[in-house]
Amino acid sequence: MPLPVPVLPEGVDPAWLPPAAFRAVGGRRTLIRGSGPLVETVHGEVAEACLRFGGRVVRDAEPGDGAYDLVLDLGGADDPEPLGEEGFTCAREGGTTTVTAVGGRGLLYGLFHVVRLGEAAFTGEQARERHHPALALRMLDHWDNVAVHPVMGQVERGYAGGSLFWEDGRAREDLERVRAYGRLLAACGINAVAVNNVNVHETEARLLTDRIGEVAAIADVLRPYGIRTHLSVSFAAPVVLGGLPTADPLEETVRDWWATATGAVYEAIPDFGGYVVKADSEGRPGPFAYGRSHADGANLLAAALEPYGGTVHWRAFVYDHCQDWRDRGTDRARAAYDHFVPLDGAFAAGAVLQVKHGPMDFQVREPVSPLIGAMPGTRLAVELQATQEYTGQQWHVCWLGPMWSEVLRFRHRPESSVGELARGGLIAVSNAGDDPFWTGHPLAQANLYTFGRLAWRPDADPDGILDEWIRLTFGPGPEPGLHAVLDGSWRTYEKYTAPLGVGFMVQPGHHYGPSVDGYEYSPWGTYHFADRDGIGVDRSVATGTGYAGQYAKPWAELYESPDTCPDELLLFFHHVSYGHTLHSGKTVIQHIYDTHFEGVEEVEEAREVWDSLAGLVDPVLHARVAERYEEQLRGAREWRDQINSYFLRKSGVPDERGRRIY
Amino acid sequence: MPLPVPVLPEGVDPAWLPPAAFRAVGGRRTLIRGSGPLVETVHGEVAEACLRFGGRVVRDAEPGDGAYDLVLDLGGADDPEPLGEEGFTCAREGGTTTVTAVGGRGLLYGLFHVVRLGEAAFTGEQARERHHPALALRMLDHWDNVAVHPVMGQVERGYAGGSLFWEDGRAREDLERVRAYGRLLAACGINAVAVNNVNVHETEARLLTDRIGEVAAIADVLRPYGIRTHLSVSFAAPVVLGGLPTADPLEETVRDWWATATGAVYEAIPDFGGYVVKADSEGRPGPFAYGRSHADGANLLAAALEPYGGTVHWRAFVYDHCQDWRDRGTDRARAAYDHFVPLDGAFAAGAVLQVKHGPMDFQVREPVSPLIGAMPGTRLAVELQATQEYTGQQWHVCWLGPMWSEVLRFRHRPESSVGELARGGLIAVSNAGDDPFWTGHPLAQANLYTFGRLAWRPDADPDGILDEWIRLTFGPGPEPGLHAVLDGSWRTYEKYTAPLGVGFMVQPGHHYGPSVDGYEYSPWGTYHFADRDGIGVDRSVATGTGYAGQYAKPWAELYESPDTCPDELLLFFHHVSYGHTLHSGKTVIQHIYDTHFEGVEEVEEAREVWDSLAGLVDPVLHARVAERYEEQLRGAREWRDQINSYFLRKSGVPDERGRRIY
Repeated sequence: MPLPVPVLPEGVDPAWLPPAAFRAVGGRRTLIRGSGPLVETVHGEVAEACLRFGGRVVRDAEPGDGAYDLVLDLGGADDPEPLGEEGFTCAREGGTTTVTAVGGRGLLYGLFHVVRLGEAAFTGEQARERHHPALALRMLDHWDNVAVHPVMGQVERGYAGGSLFWEDGRAREDLERVRAYGRLLAACGINAVAVNNVNVHETEARLLTDRIGEVAAIADVLRPYGIRTHLSVSFAAPVVLGGLPTADPLEETVRDWWATATGAVYEAIPDFGGYVVKADSEGRPGPFAYGRSHADGANLLAAALEPYGGTVHWRAFVYDHCQDWRDRGTDRARAAYDHFVPLDGAFAAGAVLQVKHGPMDFQVREPVSPLIGAMPGTRLAVELQATQEYTGQQWHVCWLGPMWSEVLRFRHRPESSVGELARGGLIAVSNAGDDPFWTGHPLAQANLYTFGRLAWRPDADPDGILDEWIRLTFGPGPEPGLHAVLDGSWRTYEKYTAPLGVGFMVQPGHHYGPSVDGYEYSPWGTYHFADRDGIGVDRSVATGTGYAGQYAKPWAELYESPDTCPDELLLFFHHVSYGHTLHSGKTVIQHIYDTHFEGVEEVEEAREVWDSLAGLVDPVLHARVAERYEEQLRGAREWRDQINSYFLRKSGVPDERGRRIY
Repeated sequence: MPLPVPVLPEGVDPAWLPPAAFRAVGGRRTLIRGSGPLVETVHGEVAEACLRFGGRVVRDAEPGDGAYDLVLDLGGADDPEPLGEEGFTCAREGGTTTVTAVGGRGLLYGLFHVVRLGEAAFTGEQARERHHPALALRMLDHWDNVAVHPVMGQVERGYAGGSLFWEDGRAREDLERVRAYGRLLAACGINAVAVNNVNVHETEARLLTDRIGEVAAIADVLRPYGIRTHLSVSFAAPVVLGGLPTADPLEETVRDWWATATGAVYEAIPDFGGYVVKADSEGRPGPFAYGRSHADGANLLAAALEPYGGTVHWRAFVYDHCQDWRDRGTDRARAAYDHFVPLDGAFAAGAVLQVKHGPMDFQVREPVSPLIGAMPGTRLAVELQATQEYTGQQWHVCWLGPMWSEVLRFRHRPESSVGELARGGLIAVSNAGDDPFWTGHPLAQANLYTFGRLAWRPDADPDGILDEWIRLTFGPGPEPGLHAVLDGSWRTYEKYTAPLGVGFMVQPGHHYGPSVDGYEYSPWGTYHFADRDGIGVDRSVATGTGYAGQYAKPWAELYESPDTCPDELLLFFHHVSYGHTLHSGKTVIQHIYDTHFEGVEEVEEAREVWDSLAGLVDPVLHARVAERYEEQLRGAREWRDQINSYFLRKSGVPDERGRRIY
């Protein structure tokens, strides 16, 4: 039975799968061969498209039996090199486009490949191309709470309404929209979802045991889209849920408890992906309480998952969040490396160490985490943040493709990029919720899409992905304008917020809007040390915290000196005077002023471009974005004026160009 | 029937009415004459004391009928000058101490006067003394929410647990503790209580109408202690509760609605005190929405209350809370004066304008509000804040007696002190809650007590009140130590927090702990304008916002110039360089450093004194205070280091004495 395409609730945006995206497929004759659940998904997609656009779909005939424009052939792959479960080939010969795959996911991805190509898939002769994902795990972590948290709300750092999965304290009864979400994710190549917040509170802890049925219901609707379900669990579960006196990972009773609990999980969800764990971090329980290492902790869960092929994703986000700001010897940027490098080689095969891309916490600009280049004996996953906690919270346009691409292409050593080192997968914190546009700001959909495509191919050109997203979502009409609006938006956001790699100049708590000293005297380890003479954190080996020395050469040498450190990271690595001259030729203070004025001007220009797209995009969507541009512009001016006033007051150096600073 | 003394729940502190306080009365022979509910209250108090200490109490005999140590005589006053309902006389002759009063409240206050005197009331001959309150209204405003507010909690700015009045969304079933609270208030002279938050939310609005029965139940238990009950109401009540299309104070339907609603209130509570209104302030509804003045608004409610003798307390806390920090022309300190002085003479007799003691918002140091001296044709009440929103939140010892006394003795013009100008009463925001010690920090009880006594006699010596409170609460043993700990605590708190009249260097939102720039770029109108050269707000007429000109001479002239402005208010009135020399001979920057080091040292000393009191006070209370001293000391060091670091970084001026600044 073909799986029907999900029906979106009235008013919910189709995102990058509007009906028009299926025009080329839907108007043609398609043969589908093979069997299995995902073939039914493929069949349902093609059948729906044909209903709309007048084509036909046939099942399981021999390719020679008739004239087909498109053959989607599961098991038809005769490629000598194995494509894997998720790969596919695509070729066009004699008027027929043929997609072959050995696995159902591969066939589904092949279909969406053809959808992306549109008419181009049905033009001329095309030699066979092989496609398969560079990374086996392409995952979204949802920081969704089941019970609404009194401070953090339902979705922690969520800017797109409530949770897609949870409502009124339990899994949604109607999971049709979750199914639609799974379809969107499959269309950009994502194959795993963790359905609850890494900060596992009391209610959510129970998803692991007596409430696993709710997780299974979600897994059931995601499975036909090739998506496996993962669960964030509490390291203290044996105590909290099991009533044991300890969660010590070396205790036999604890190991038994996890083995039994995990067995029950797999009974409910046979293809369950595994656990996500935030341990000994920001107050979460962990192995330190028992004098055990994080390898002990991770291996405990890996052992429980091992019989079923599951994986534990163990987050490396471990640092002292009760630091004394007076203590300049402790450097939060060093923490993940200092904690985990000594454990390299000690993690079990089923344990993946999940590392944030930067050493701090998803700032608009950070260096790439040195930990990623320093764990050759460990499976690593790299974590990005699609939800815009520090990048405008989905009220500001900030397309993160270029930043993520920079991270993924970064080579800790000449032979290996981050994209290659992330053997345990690429993960993003999701930016989606039950908002009608999925992501609050409609253009933030581009981040979700781009993440999926970069996870499939980390060395892909982000610009190309952006155009692909625009064409799928909006058709060809508004492409140049949308490209202009999105392409430079990350650098624009950086300009009017955080200069030269300094971070955390945000309002404490909610992180929206500027507060230069907001985290300066806090326990969070996030300081800029601005005084009347200069600003920045000395992280050199020679005179600073030594963080620069956590990198391999040439980076360690490059970052060590202000003379060679890239401008955009200067204040991350060095404390310099306001008069310090950058490679750009500007002084630090003038750079601060100039970028803040420029950033606002760029937002003004982008808003004008957006205004010019009225009539070329859906009017409801246009209005939503236009409304958010008002706020973005207000916010950008607030950033500009606060940052410039702060540094003028502190430095006393006037703007060379005499612009208004308050 | 004598009214039984309230029974405190197990573990609740008796505050300043421990059984021992009644020893002198309870061991003697007392005659009570007169009738009425408050005489029964008096009788119950004396009877309880006699039960405990072996004395006797007789009712309504003639004084000559036997030998009495104490005669409490209602109606016995033959003083030619009327004492009023609340006054009493006290004399001792021939071994008998006689209290006379014309009203029940007067008799109750007379009894507590004798209790305060203790043995001294029964010694020698004493000429007749007349006592009556200088201010007719001595009121506590409770910022208690009925429904717990998601951000502000149950008691807005409350630091003493939940509400005494409200629990689980309604008035407490068991009001015995409210009765005990009323008794404590009567013993320090308070005669009015507003039972809900001036920010009237949806649930609380309904107290005025269908939930008035709950207010009546509270009024019933407070009445025997001479306390009238008041209610905070929403100016939008005719719309929100009455379904009218408008709340315009000049609309006949609106006036009728208030008249009817108020009639129903008085049916439920015949001695109802009146309304408290926060209008057009921080988002509350008010007459501005209809183009009407605040006199129009207040007079609307005064007219509704007038037939019953009730009063509306109309708060003057009106300012622009959405100010742009870039706009240096707007000065929040000016706002109350600018709004209300043009309305002088326009308020009805039943309307009282309730003015905060300073022009801003209960900072640790502010000048006295110039509005208080500028409304000769208006009944004014002055509002103090017992709850320690900006003065340590009942984790830090900060006895506010000296500050309040300074305010009340301040003479806007030579002929009239603030205490005299407050013809509409003295009001404090309560610091009490359902905490076992009533006020979180046990020593914060001193603020509640001191407020009551100063409201009775605004020119009283606060030091004497402090000693009175210590003796009543703790007996004579720990008096010198406690006096030392409390007496200088406000100035100590000022030292380690806010120098020279600068305010609002607090963490936004909860206001606990330092954040020098926390409110600097905010919409709240609270700025210090610190830059690398200097700090402070120029409020002079000559070059600043003109606020100094709102005072009469000589204050206007004194505040106008940094040469004559008192040191402690310098930064409130002037922006000066860090090198500016104070009258003390110190520079501003050195004053900042010195006071912050001194403040911490003084806390350390106070803690040692407190430690030495172990064994002299109840051990549970001693432990609670000792615990809070730990936090106070941590907090004081945090204040010291953040403030000093901030100003060292900004000014670049080293500490003359070379102490550690981070």
